[in-house]
Amino acid sequence: MNINTVTVGIIGGTGEEGRGLALRWAMAGAQVTIGSRSVERAQEAADELNQILGSQDIAYGTNESAVAASEFVLLTVPFDYAASTLESLKTRFRSDAILIDITVPVSFEQGRVRYVEPVEGSASEHLKIRLPEHIPLVAAFKTEPAHMLLDPNAVLDCDTFVASDNKEAKARVMEAIKYIEGLRPVDAGVLYSARCLERMTVLLIGINRRHKIKTGRFRVLGLPE
Amino acid sequence: MNINTVTVGIIGGTGEEGRGLALRWAMAGAQVTIGSRSVERAQEAADELNQILGSQDIAYGTNESAVAASEFVLLTVPFDYAASTLESLKTRFRSDAILIDITVPVSFEQGRVRYVEPVEGSASEHLKIRLPEHIPLVAAFKTEPAHMLLDPNAVLDCDTFVASDNKEAKARVMEAIKYIEGLRPVDAGVLYSARCLERMTVLLIGINRRHKIKTGRFRVLGLPE
Repeated sequence: MNINTVTVGIIGGTGEEGRGLALRWAMAGAQVTIGSRSVERAQEAADELNQILGSQDIAYGTNESAVAASEFVLLTVPFDYAASTLESLKTRFRSDAILIDITVPVSFEQGRVRYVEPVEGSASEHLKIRLPEHIPLVAAFKTEPAHMLLDPNAVLDCDTFVASDNKEAKARVMEAIKYIEGLRPVDAGVLYSARCLERMTVLLIGINRRHKIKTGRFRVLGLPE
Repeated sequence: MNINTVTVGIIGGTGEEGRGLALRWAMAGAQVTIGSRSVERAQEAADELNQILGSQDIAYGTNESAVAASEFVLLTVPFDYAASTLESLKTRFRSDAILIDITVPVSFEQGRVRYVEPVEGSASEHLKIRLPEHIPLVAAFKTEPAHMLLDPNAVLDCDTFVASDNKEAKARVMEAIKYIEGLRPVDAGVLYSARCLERMTVLLIGINRRHKIKTGRFRVLGLPE
């Protein structure tokens, strides 16, 4: 894999997670396009990140143009808007596209964070049945701290769990993730595992809150090098 | 806390998890009693562990006597027998007892491991409503590798997530766990979090299988020392 030819489009790329992942993929050498419903806001986000990078590497545009430009399409809108956003974009996907779903449905009620379980069992499974069958969906980047992704000097040194029912798509995403410094892809199996991964996000939010930190993240110990 | 006065009883303590936790609690300095439906099998397990320890520190008996002797009562039977085992023992708990539930309902079908979600959302929640209200239930030790617990030379170097609706009981269990070398207790919040922790066990089983290892375990990075 030549990471410099890998194209990454970020749907809803102006949020903290979207910008953080745009930055880290650009640092890895991929061609990144930040998409947004508002081109102006996409440009603002790209400008901010390009200033950090000291380059003009990160492009921007509408969500439609980010999807059209990319093999890896990251869905980083809040879960409540995920299905409708996908619905409006699904005809724009390239034939080689892979959708990478990072969404997690959470609610904050009475100061407590809860997982809002979709009928299908997880956000990723919820979205998969709404996507044309020829577009593989890979769940990833569910448990990384956005705050750290956005700080180019923060040493991530953690794992990202990758789950999909499409083995080839999962393998390709995992291979690309290896180029992101400090982030190790861990094969989490089939998409069903998203039920666990999304709850792990909620667990981490709780752990972060109790410790008043934003840096909580997972590492699996005991794996072969 | 004086760990040497902490009493730990292991219901179903002859299985791999039960023996592993018995060994680690004994190494920490606690007074451990292995319980089993069969006193003979409890004795066999205790003899094996005492040989490892080079002492006679670990006691044994029926499940009833292990419960009667202990503040911390660990439930380590397979989930399918958990509720009926508790039902038969619930009048034997001491007034200061805390039930520590380590059970995880899993199935292995067609070579795939799945979480068998109880109606209540998790094994721990399933058991809590079957326990007399005055006995606090704490979920812990759901994601530790039994194989490593049983090897006294294995460096655990990982986290155990501890969840409960009873803050005092959770704090006491976490304080005691700190005496187990290499195991860091992480506050996982209310018992609801067991829904995540039990799925993390299943995730780990899958990760272990894919890597042909038995050592997979979790560490949360980014916590203050």
